[in-house]
Amino acid sequence: MKVCIVGLGLLGGSFALAVRKVVKDCTVLGVDVNEEHARTALERGIAGEITTFEAGIAQADITVLATPVDILASQVVPALDLLKPGAILTDLGSTKEIICQKAAGHALRGRFVASHPIAGTEDSGPKAAFEGLLKDKMMIICDGEYSDADAVKTIEGLYEKVGMKIVYMPAKAHDSHIAFVSHLSHISSFALGATVLEKEKNEKNIFNMAGSGFSSTVRLAKSSPDMWAPIFSQNRGNISQALALYIEKLQQFKETIDADDQASAHRFMKETNDIRRVLKGDD
Amino acid sequence: MKVCIVGLGLLGGSFALAVRKVVKDCTVLGVDVNEEHARTALERGIAGEITTFEAGIAQADITVLATPVDILASQVVPALDLLKPGAILTDLGSTKEIICQKAAGHALRGRFVASHPIAGTEDSGPKAAFEGLLKDKMMIICDGEYSDADAVKTIEGLYEKVGMKIVYMPAKAHDSHIAFVSHLSHISSFALGATVLEKEKNEKNIFNMAGSGFSSTVRLAKSSPDMWAPIFSQNRGNISQALALYIEKLQQFKETIDADDQASAHRFMKETNDIRRVLKGDD
Repeated sequence: MKVCIVGLGLLGGSFALAVRKVVKDCTVLGVDVNEEHARTALERGIAGEITTFEAGIAQADITVLATPVDILASQVVPALDLLKPGAILTDLGSTKEIICQKAAGHALRGRFVASHPIAGTEDSGPKAAFEGLLKDKMMIICDGEYSDADAVKTIEGLYEKVGMKIVYMPAKAHDSHIAFVSHLSHISSFALGATVLEKEKNEKNIFNMAGSGFSSTVRLAKSSPDMWAPIFSQNRGNISQALALYIEKLQQFKETIDADDQASAHRFMKETNDIRRVLKGDD
Repeated sequence: MKVCIVGLGLLGGSFALAVRKVVKDCTVLGVDVNEEHARTALERGIAGEITTFEAGIAQADITVLATPVDILASQVVPALDLLKPGAILTDLGSTKEIICQKAAGHALRGRFVASHPIAGTEDSGPKAAFEGLLKDKMMIICDGEYSDADAVKTIEGLYEKVGMKIVYMPAKAHDSHIAFVSHLSHISSFALGATVLEKEKNEKNIFNMAGSGFSSTVRLAKSSPDMWAPIFSQNRGNISQALALYIEKLQQFKETIDADDQASAHRFMKETNDIRRVLKGDD
């Protein structure tokens, strides 16, 4: 089987490493416009060979788009145009509605399986890739009813082979929920980092006072702007709603603090402690 | 040496476990108004015996106040009143200005060493305590110039024995900085948890979509309201400033998203990526 990975960063690279490990007789064709990334991917055994977008997709049985979502959205139609008969296109983008819209109406729409793995770290590029990133993680397949049944089955099989659990969801619902449970976390973290950097700009050693709590909440502020700016743009309607509600909660909490209303602050926290139960899946 | 720990929760309990490990011929006298906590502390070997506030402090060489900061502030004067000649009082509270004010003017002010360890987890109570919590962590000693030199030296020695690194800071500066690098993280996390719980209240399985990024940013929302409500109250001036700046950053980011201004969003994130260098201490 020939798998073409377009975009050899953290996700594409990790997926390639996992696929090469679990699929017998698999050739990974790597595509990346960044020559240094392509070289690193070859050296690290992410791709067996480096090729072009056109040549890679034209010979692949499965093509995986793993570029930043602005580029990814622009690659869906050209990639579908290049597929050989029976081949399949999938993607790993963090937004799904715009990407699915790009494929809509294409004669080969059925060969496209839109997906989003709930996996990542604050690092990026092929050096950050590792074989285990996707193992035991969730893969969300969106708008699967527009994909050919055999294409969905093949892609599911491949994702399951690398250890992922599959769930299904309409692209619209995906983008709305992911704004709250992923995209908002990144913005809360970036804003926290920006706030503390501004306050402490002349007092670098203050960061010695930062413990594991700060590290944990600010970790995502190390994430790649090249990856995240297009995600925020494509999902801006949902993110704007999530941010508005988040700011409202913060303002509400600030009012209880300014009024020294400890009972209300306590209640706010106590109710939110429910996140412990919910994250455990303990309904 | 007799050490009396008042408040056998995560911090007091962990400190007791560490002290019992590293100090030879040490008796830990435990005090806790919560009888179940006291029993757990005995069972877990946190305290060698359980006693009362009065009896414990009266016989201790070193007393450590490790209660929530509202209770802690009310215990400073009674504890100083109970100290035997030459004994020392210290504390592990997350706020320092109000606690130091309570001790100010007391005849035995010199026997008090105010301190704050940069350590903790989202869990609380004696069950959450563990011997290694304070190892390699920072201990901030505040307003040390008001403490007797021998008292500071003894307390420093004890903290160093459990593996902590000591830094010195005025209480006022401590409270201002800690609002940004610790207290704000907790509020950002509580508000994030509250936002997502409100949005997804009827769709619990949406939390399956939450990855490690969400878990990391929302972790502190599991923290104890009993511990945090009094901290937010005591440090509300500084926290209000921190929150105002944080909300401003979020609003600024929301505007770039609403305007689909990707260049500004990219710049905001790129500048904030500096947190990676700063947290590494890599100036």
